[in-house]
Amino acid sequence: MSVLDVEAKLGEFKKLVRKIKQYDEAVGLIYWDMRTGAPKKGLETRSEVVGELSTDVFRMSTSEAMGAYLDIFTEPAQLEQLDPISRKMVEECKKEYDRSKKIPEEEYQAYVVLTSQAETIWEEARHKSDYAQFQPYLEKIVATNIRFIELWGYEGNKYNTLLDMYEPGMTVEKLDEVFSELRKKLVPLLQAIQASTHQPDRSFLDQNYDKEKQKQFSLFILEQMHYDFAAGRLDETAHPFATGLNPGDVRITTRYILNEVTAALFGTIHEGGHALYEQNISEELIGTNLCTGTSMGIHESQSRFWENVIGRSKAFWNRYYTDLQARFPEQLDQVDVEAFYHAINHIEPSLIRVEADELTYNLHIMIRYEIEKGLINGTIQVVDLPEVWNAKYQEYLGVTPTTDADGVLQDVHWAGGAFGYFPSYSLGNMYAAQFTNTLRKELPGFDELIAAGNLEPIKAYLIDKIYKHGKLLTPDEIILQVTGEELNPEYLVEYLEEKYKALYQIV
Amino acid sequence: MSVLDVEAKLGEFKKLVRKIKQYDEAVGLIYWDMRTGAPKKGLETRSEVVGELSTDVFRMSTSEAMGAYLDIFTEPAQLEQLDPISRKMVEECKKEYDRSKKIPEEEYQAYVVLTSQAETIWEEARHKSDYAQFQPYLEKIVATNIRFIELWGYEGNKYNTLLDMYEPGMTVEKLDEVFSELRKKLVPLLQAIQASTHQPDRSFLDQNYDKEKQKQFSLFILEQMHYDFAAGRLDETAHPFATGLNPGDVRITTRYILNEVTAALFGTIHEGGHALYEQNISEELIGTNLCTGTSMGIHESQSRFWENVIGRSKAFWNRYYTDLQARFPEQLDQVDVEAFYHAINHIEPSLIRVEADELTYNLHIMIRYEIEKGLINGTIQVVDLPEVWNAKYQEYLGVTPTTDADGVLQDVHWAGGAFGYFPSYSLGNMYAAQFTNTLRKELPGFDELIAAGNLEPIKAYLIDKIYKHGKLLTPDEIILQVTGEELNPEYLVEYLEEKYKALYQIV
Repeated sequence: MSVLDVEAKLGEFKKLVRKIKQYDEAVGLIYWDMRTGAPKKGLETRSEVVGELSTDVFRMSTSEAMGAYLDIFTEPAQLEQLDPISRKMVEECKKEYDRSKKIPEEEYQAYVVLTSQAETIWEEARHKSDYAQFQPYLEKIVATNIRFIELWGYEGNKYNTLLDMYEPGMTVEKLDEVFSELRKKLVPLLQAIQASTHQPDRSFLDQNYDKEKQKQFSLFILEQMHYDFAAGRLDETAHPFATGLNPGDVRITTRYILNEVTAALFGTIHEGGHALYEQNISEELIGTNLCTGTSMGIHESQSRFWENVIGRSKAFWNRYYTDLQARFPEQLDQVDVEAFYHAINHIEPSLIRVEADELTYNLHIMIRYEIEKGLINGTIQVVDLPEVWNAKYQEYLGVTPTTDADGVLQDVHWAGGAFGYFPSYSLGNMYAAQFTNTLRKELPGFDELIAAGNLEPIKAYLIDKIYKHGKLLTPDEIILQVTGEELNPEYLVEYLEEKYKALYQIV
Repeated sequence: MSVLDVEAKLGEFKKLVRKIKQYDEAVGLIYWDMRTGAPKKGLETRSEVVGELSTDVFRMSTSEAMGAYLDIFTEPAQLEQLDPISRKMVEECKKEYDRSKKIPEEEYQAYVVLTSQAETIWEEARHKSDYAQFQPYLEKIVATNIRFIELWGYEGNKYNTLLDMYEPGMTVEKLDEVFSELRKKLVPLLQAIQASTHQPDRSFLDQNYDKEKQKQFSLFILEQMHYDFAAGRLDETAHPFATGLNPGDVRITTRYILNEVTAALFGTIHEGGHALYEQNISEELIGTNLCTGTSMGIHESQSRFWENVIGRSKAFWNRYYTDLQARFPEQLDQVDVEAFYHAINHIEPSLIRVEADELTYNLHIMIRYEIEKGLINGTIQVVDLPEVWNAKYQEYLGVTPTTDADGVLQDVHWAGGAFGYFPSYSLGNMYAAQFTNTLRKELPGFDELIAAGNLEPIKAYLIDKIYKHGKLLTPDEIILQVTGEELNPEYLVEYLEEKYKALYQIV
């Protein structure tokens, strides 16, 4: 093929990728609308629109045309001549193409129907705390995942193939090691915290906090984070989320709970962190399949960096507590910043993952990780899950659910078939702590910047090191480039030990 | 072709039509979002998404597959065997297919670019009141329209082809007749009104009316109209509009002007009228190209029926004025319902179409109609437009614009190439009056229903006679079926004479 032909083909390939991305953007907007305010009577027809557009995306991604482009450009001689962006585009398309092509279409469609039904059943089952109702669906979902892994192929542990979907390059071998390391250090820390007599008063947090004022404060904090409102907006939903439609349109939602002021507060900062990532991806990646966060784990590292490392820090509240007090004098005038800081950083084992603090959260994840690994490798059976779940909660956290609704049925992930996703949350915590360690060295006066409300240099640093690259770098490459070493759980341990030993006066 | 083959082909055809409709729905939602609250930095990329999806719609509508289906089903023997819905679907697709196919693709695309540029230039030109800047664009747009008419073909007057795009079946021959009839009657009525000494006080309308209360009243009136909020929502935009995405999702917007309480009031009712139409199209038409209002004129008849016949009636305010007063006691406590009723029905020639009352509005339209007809037939030149415009305003309305911004540059329609659209507004007024005449006979106690705030039977009547049919019936068929006769401007004349002679005490 002549150089000109190759260039023309590359142009066509990029046009196809751009088109797929455009359809994805349309679907993303429709989802945002469905979750924020679409009238309910239109949803059935709207779902069909989503189905049609998604099917078209699938068709384009697995089309003969796509196959032909990939045949050309995955030739090693051709691939290495491509510029870095084009090469990565090809590699990502190839990965997705192979993944889709290896599953017979009817099996894939049956799985889509299955998980869609399972989500409905799960909702009902959770409501009634009736695991038996959900069990047959979960059995089929697990069996299908095992079947798909056989078709996709795997290296080492079967579960690696699922991990790789959310965290490219992550393996059971690595995770076993980091989680075991983490657990070994966190359990004694947790015990020391529980044994401490220096426990916070949290009662002032559950007074009534006016919704409109909560909203104003959410908007204020987003401004302080330099979230760009000309490239986004804040809405209200029962379950907060962030969605990057394109870097110029990254929307977030939060929820306002009258007697739980921390829900909006930290929910907003968390989603704001996700949004900063998506708003600041390099313009040259717009219209490519690289214009998104590189992995769930790195994404989560950013939401958790902003939520926990910044948003739950002493420095942050030294700067912003008076602003919060000014909005809620009745509730907070008698509470000093130390008391507030301790209250929002209370550590306590609990049953529900989404309500967990930044320390015990990791133990919730390890439980799910162990269970998923066992299910996929056949060492744990779906029928035994409630028992396994409860035993692990007792073992890891010292608490036992009294109902399956508060236990094995609490998360939607498995109903949706999202096996391999949970570890991302803990990876996010570990990445965030590791990034912070480097940041503190490279950005002198990190705490002083926060205490001065000068968050711009921190954002600029993250843009340069992480955000702008989108999916151009893998998670492994980013963590290595930024911190000079591979993922290391020690930094999260250090961060938690330093923070919580001080807070709970542990010597 | 066997019966089974024909059935299979019909199924495929309907699937294609449904797919086109689904894409249209996605595009419709994106437009709604762009106009209501999309962050501005994302708009450039979003426009490309719209461009891509619209291009796909065009491709599907003019595809070989579509051509092949139409070849089969437009065969008279096949066509007459089809059920009414399928037959009408085929006819509508054929009409659009032919219209698109007759224009060479590159000419069509050049026209899209031209009108898109022209809209930008028009905005600037209007701002500076600089017609010369806009003139070359308008010249090209008019020339292209004439060229397209030659390609499309025409019967009788060339302008008929353009009229037919917005009002199927409408012709210059008919319009000349009804407009001349209308003008003959309206001009003396207007003169009598202007000569009347019984002029209303309108000063209380331009006090400050709290925005939030205006919004609450808008929502209240929409409820009274039985606008279904489970199938819609009300938002705020500078230019109010209604958009029917599907019958379960018909959204409207309004605008709140502090010292012009009538803007939101009648804007909301107007768009609510459009929305009632779209919300109540028969379910069996969902997913077909018939699931929309049958023409611009019939659509406008409904917005104007609700806005003017209902919303500006004495009966309506006999029922609802106390509700408005209760929200704005400071502004309205000293104003009785008669004074309010007269103030919102003040007739006065003016320069700006969108601010015109329900009588003079028709004269604004006639001016545009005469000009468009002249431009398309070559009897008026673009270069002469400001002069022609001003002369006609003097002749029809007795007022002359002092700037082109308030004259020939006031409407966006021509910049967008929408020649043939303007008459719809006046047709809407005429249809509305003609429907009302029948309604009064068939729904006894029409005024009493309104005065009792019992608008449900009126809505139910309109659903049955008009809304549910969508595009299954033509405007001609609807007006004939509902009223027993063809379009007759006499009803509008009667309605206006009766209402305004009483109001202005003309004998």
